[in-house]
Amino acid sequence: MDRKDLQELKTIVGEEWVSTGDSVRELHSHDESFHPWVLPDVVVWPHSTEEVSRLVRWAYDHKVPVTPWGAGTSLEGNPIPVKGGMVIDLQEMDRILEIRQGDFQVDVEAGVVYKDLNKELRRYGLFFPPDPGAAATIGGMIGNNASGIRTVKYGPTREYVLRLVVVLPGGEVIRVGNRARKSSSGYDLLRLFTGAEGTLGIVTEATLRLVGLPENFMALRATFPTVSDATDTVFQVMSSGLVPSAMEFLDAEVVKVLNRDRELELEESPTLLMEFDGYSEEGLKAEMAFVEGICRENRSLLIDKGIGPDERNRLWEIRHLTFESIKRAHPGLEPLIMDVAVPLSRYSEMVAFVKEEVSDLTAYLFGHAGDGNIHVVVMDRPGDEARWRRVQEANRRVVLKALELEGTCTGEHGVGIGKREFAAREHGEALEVMKRIKETLDPHGLMNPGKIFP
Amino acid sequence: MDRKDLQELKTIVGEEWVSTGDSVRELHSHDESFHPWVLPDVVVWPHSTEEVSRLVRWAYDHKVPVTPWGAGTSLEGNPIPVKGGMVIDLQEMDRILEIRQGDFQVDVEAGVVYKDLNKELRRYGLFFPPDPGAAATIGGMIGNNASGIRTVKYGPTREYVLRLVVVLPGGEVIRVGNRARKSSSGYDLLRLFTGAEGTLGIVTEATLRLVGLPENFMALRATFPTVSDATDTVFQVMSSGLVPSAMEFLDAEVVKVLNRDRELELEESPTLLMEFDGYSEEGLKAEMAFVEGICRENRSLLIDKGIGPDERNRLWEIRHLTFESIKRAHPGLEPLIMDVAVPLSRYSEMVAFVKEEVSDLTAYLFGHAGDGNIHVVVMDRPGDEARWRRVQEANRRVVLKALELEGTCTGEHGVGIGKREFAAREHGEALEVMKRIKETLDPHGLMNPGKIFP
Repeated sequence: MDRKDLQELKTIVGEEWVSTGDSVRELHSHDESFHPWVLPDVVVWPHSTEEVSRLVRWAYDHKVPVTPWGAGTSLEGNPIPVKGGMVIDLQEMDRILEIRQGDFQVDVEAGVVYKDLNKELRRYGLFFPPDPGAAATIGGMIGNNASGIRTVKYGPTREYVLRLVVVLPGGEVIRVGNRARKSSSGYDLLRLFTGAEGTLGIVTEATLRLVGLPENFMALRATFPTVSDATDTVFQVMSSGLVPSAMEFLDAEVVKVLNRDRELELEESPTLLMEFDGYSEEGLKAEMAFVEGICRENRSLLIDKGIGPDERNRLWEIRHLTFESIKRAHPGLEPLIMDVAVPLSRYSEMVAFVKEEVSDLTAYLFGHAGDGNIHVVVMDRPGDEARWRRVQEANRRVVLKALELEGTCTGEHGVGIGKREFAAREHGEALEVMKRIKETLDPHGLMNPGKIFP
Repeated sequence: MDRKDLQELKTIVGEEWVSTGDSVRELHSHDESFHPWVLPDVVVWPHSTEEVSRLVRWAYDHKVPVTPWGAGTSLEGNPIPVKGGMVIDLQEMDRILEIRQGDFQVDVEAGVVYKDLNKELRRYGLFFPPDPGAAATIGGMIGNNASGIRTVKYGPTREYVLRLVVVLPGGEVIRVGNRARKSSSGYDLLRLFTGAEGTLGIVTEATLRLVGLPENFMALRATFPTVSDATDTVFQVMSSGLVPSAMEFLDAEVVKVLNRDRELELEESPTLLMEFDGYSEEGLKAEMAFVEGICRENRSLLIDKGIGPDERNRLWEIRHLTFESIKRAHPGLEPLIMDVAVPLSRYSEMVAFVKEEVSDLTAYLFGHAGDGNIHVVVMDRPGDEARWRRVQEANRRVVLKALELEGTCTGEHGVGIGKREFAAREHGEALEVMKRIKETLDPHGLMNPGKIFP
């Protein structure tokens, strides 16, 4: 990246929005995973789709790799610029463009932070349900098809994307989708770009479908004598036909860490957190009674429950900061986070396998149980080769088990760098089709290189 | 198609599963639309994915066009073999392979008829929600991303596809997706093949996500003095945050035809049919009271309502046979069916425009109002050039209005032949991306040629 190059970039986005400073490059060299840091050559902050288009066109002409950047909260190295080049940081494109209350829709720029969006939408009685926990941007969530605790009822990001503005690898700008609630018009490019981790183009704007804030909540925390009592309960509740708006599992070790970190006094047993939302209190009470019955049949030790937002917040307080509490408990260690998902009927088997597999490691099990998604945070030292090999071997064995159970190597964190080695195993010949699409849209392999494909 | 060719096809699928008979070819020359019939050269009925693969490979080697066939119930000419060649009729692949009750999943072959599937699933307390009305096959529904009256709550076919077996245009077989409820692994090929109308390959098997049969129903029929009172009610109910499991609009003319055809005595006014489903009767009653209030505010003339499956069936009886009743009322005429969808806030404007536009035609308005989807069945004579030009001009103006209102040219019937002329207008530069994907996967343009692209 010589002086002339930088001058050209400055002509596009303005002097102060191009940086080659060490601290800036370092900030854009890693996400929240353990994957090795790689510094980009330059970081740029565009303010419009047109600027993104010109930047990408410039990169295309100069054969410079381009990596789009949201908030850097990914967990599989998804935005690490492994081939250097240009990082396009979209955080300056953070405007909520229009809220259409009656249509339950919002237009946003890609750099809007998810939590800021929902704070604003709350004033309109609306929300955007996919809840990845981290302070992700909408662009990052779309790139990753992000999901979270409410996906069990509301679905992942994919189901909320109505329109996208995308800058293709050659700099062309396309507009995909429309504002109707449904359409059968042509190939589903919305879903192709959603979850492509920025390897097919850069999403700069989106129209999102929204959901009305639920009238009422009911929340329930139940503890169990064993992990399998808890995971069997998950399957039985889910296969009853009830649709919880959240269904989370926390293993005893996780509760222990939370108690210590946040000065709580919760029972340190395998725990389920559930939420139901709906229109009427009567309806929720009937569902709660049914769920309590299932918990009791599975030897539940304790059931704490409540109706309304305050009770819900009390019971759920512990969930969102799980990852932070675990990290704080092990200063100096780095996390590897497993993220497999399996059919619900295999969830108990999967969790039992995982628990056995990580029994010699500093490991914490929790997850979006209602989606068959289990996370394990393993805290260790990537620098200690022998130990880290063992951690990665455990991850590998867990992934292979999930695939054997007809599940997926990643429920929600994406393939990024960390899951590339499993792509062929999971997708077989279908991976060839993905490759052909990638080569067609990005013939020089410049868009977020080194991700998804082995 | 010479004798040697036919012999080779017979070697693949067996003597009796290859036909060049006139009546068979005629049966596979048209769907339920007015689009001109085109006879294929040969019709074949494979019994396995492997046979489909060998047929497609043979066609690829001989550069013979291939059109997959489900039940022929499409409405935009989607399965008409416009370039002749081979029709692969999948109706012999009609096995329900496995029902996994606890996982809410079913494995089916592509030729399974939607209604047969739901009849079987009912025994397990489950159902596959997209309800296109016609006796479509699952393969056809996937090809078309079919939807229907329950899409307003449950979403279109796209949201139910977990795994697909697809035969690519060169005959390669790929397996896409997995059995977990969610995944962020690689490009979303499931959604790429869903809605591609068989132009990228042939879906031979699918794993579908299912939903538990609702515990309880509440149904409501309300009539209104004017169309805009009815359509305003739609917007107000939908923007209240309630989620009906169906929300249908029928114009007065439609009710008139239904009364005559089915010897009913319903009020011949603009009508809304609504359904809510849920766990508890108490919850449903609270929702019903709220909806009734909105109907009254919009000067509803009559509200007929009830709780439970019998009442639901009574109130809904009239909806499913609408299209058949209209056709029976006009023997000798052919239908053109409009199928636009717009944002809900523009629904009243769209319906008013449509009503004005078709006022000189024999036209019936109804639609999945809760999705902003409006159908107009225009009955006329395609053979009468001047009249049919007028019918098509009305269709064109309605589509352009829908696009102006940021909607889509097809809410659920697909592009097929009939909407190709609008593809460039609706998708702009994004159509180029679709074309590049098509050319990459089907370089010789053999899979269902003449569809989607202008």
